[in-house]
Amino acid sequence: MSLDQTWVTEAIDATGTAFALKGKKLHEEQTPYQKIEIFETETFGYLMTIDGCTMVSTRDNFLYHEMMSHPALNSHPNPETVVIVGGGDCGTLREVLKHSEVKSATQVEIDERVTRLSEQYFPELCDKNGDPRATLFFGDGIQWMKDAAPGSIDVIIIDSTDPVGPAEGLFGKKFYLDCIKALKPNGMLVQQSESPLLHLELIKEMHAAMKEAGFVETTLLHFPQVIYPSGWWSGSIALKQKGSLVSRLDQADALDTQFYNRETHSAAFALPSFVKKALASI
Amino acid sequence: MSLDQTWVTEAIDATGTAFALKGKKLHEEQTPYQKIEIFETETFGYLMTIDGCTMVSTRDNFLYHEMMSHPALNSHPNPETVVIVGGGDCGTLREVLKHSEVKSATQVEIDERVTRLSEQYFPELCDKNGDPRATLFFGDGIQWMKDAAPGSIDVIIIDSTDPVGPAEGLFGKKFYLDCIKALKPNGMLVQQSESPLLHLELIKEMHAAMKEAGFVETTLLHFPQVIYPSGWWSGSIALKQKGSLVSRLDQADALDTQFYNRETHSAAFALPSFVKKALASI
Repeated sequence: MSLDQTWVTEAIDATGTAFALKGKKLHEEQTPYQKIEIFETETFGYLMTIDGCTMVSTRDNFLYHEMMSHPALNSHPNPETVVIVGGGDCGTLREVLKHSEVKSATQVEIDERVTRLSEQYFPELCDKNGDPRATLFFGDGIQWMKDAAPGSIDVIIIDSTDPVGPAEGLFGKKFYLDCIKALKPNGMLVQQSESPLLHLELIKEMHAAMKEAGFVETTLLHFPQVIYPSGWWSGSIALKQKGSLVSRLDQADALDTQFYNRETHSAAFALPSFVKKALASI
Repeated sequence: MSLDQTWVTEAIDATGTAFALKGKKLHEEQTPYQKIEIFETETFGYLMTIDGCTMVSTRDNFLYHEMMSHPALNSHPNPETVVIVGGGDCGTLREVLKHSEVKSATQVEIDERVTRLSEQYFPELCDKNGDPRATLFFGDGIQWMKDAAPGSIDVIIIDSTDPVGPAEGLFGKKFYLDCIKALKPNGMLVQQSESPLLHLELIKEMHAAMKEAGFVETTLLHFPQVIYPSGWWSGSIALKQKGSLVSRLDQADALDTQFYNRETHSAAFALPSFVKKALASI
């Protein structure tokens, strides 16, 4: 069968895959950085796409946002200072602020319109933006990281779009070097790293670039993310200091979460054999 | 955008979701039971659909087949006698036969054409069909289970299509009663149980029906399955005898698998908080 315009469709030639949700367009705008569209879907609530790629839906964003923040924060001994690069929908910021040990959470988003549209269509993701610990900065994450005070950050979360367009510079040795400089000695970076099935080569390249930049250990975590290609997604953790990955799970079940808990924390780090094999030599 | 006929598309109105692979049709036939189609895709190898639903692809079937067999078999103390209901592509049978403790594995598939087409397009899934421990029976699984010798089976794997059409009778109390009768005292049933996100109500109903039929414990496991709706799938385990679920993981890493290993075994049973909550009262 064919899909007509009553479906919101993301078709990707490079992977030969497509995903679609039944729905209709509510809004479209071209910002200086990208084209943002908002749809109302029949079963997934609102959907934001950027340059045609699915970004966030009301129904399933909890998977990505919880798993890009809690496993990393609960693997760091004391994540007081957190910086989110990208993440303009504010969903990751909201999860980060659930940790009482976090004293400062800064979101560095290049495109203010992502946040303004999120406030309008995903208000539940923005309901902690007024937290006194939160700072919303709108500007270039690459420049921000270059200018960051050395040794000042505990956890950097790179919550970006795919490695094309404005986010391309966030995937690579040059940017990682600035991140390492900005991190405290036991600091950690976590970056969304696409699909374990569809983008394994990209994941290998990312981990290799992280190591080349000077991160001493890299780890993958994975989780379901329904609206992203393949429905299966990953994050990559990079450590500045060997052996600094901990498991602080005492409070894991007390976080107000839908997917994340003590068990799914550990499960996220359980790597499939084909992934282990691919990453073994990096 | 729209998807044209160069895409093989499964669109589901009930869930408002669609998944598609770039490819072209090689074969189509209407059997007495269902319509089977075979496609050659650009990035996922061959694809079989039944009544328009994606069933098996060359590239990602390992996820489903490994996770529908190894977690269950390694959770049973001594799975000597295994019966697969459905599973005509023979992929589950192949995984079951990797266990040296299995003395007999019987596949009960209603539609012989599924197997014959699998032999042609997925020969790697059928390469153990000549194993002396394997029996391929073509007939109605519901009748087969009714006629099975009481107390004769260790593990029943229900590897069926969705609960509509010929597979409908495999989801419900009446069939479960026959399964319980056919199982040994410490016997186990495992059934594919759709998507944790899209079909949570169905999963609840299944577990309730299993309990009503007399199974004393039910457990969910979950895993990625890219070509199925949402890319996230589940199996449901039902036990005839309380406390008989074990973890025999000594040999888990020695199985020749791509996804399954000791860690992903445990990870599959780590339930997301929203799933735990939904199943808590059953």
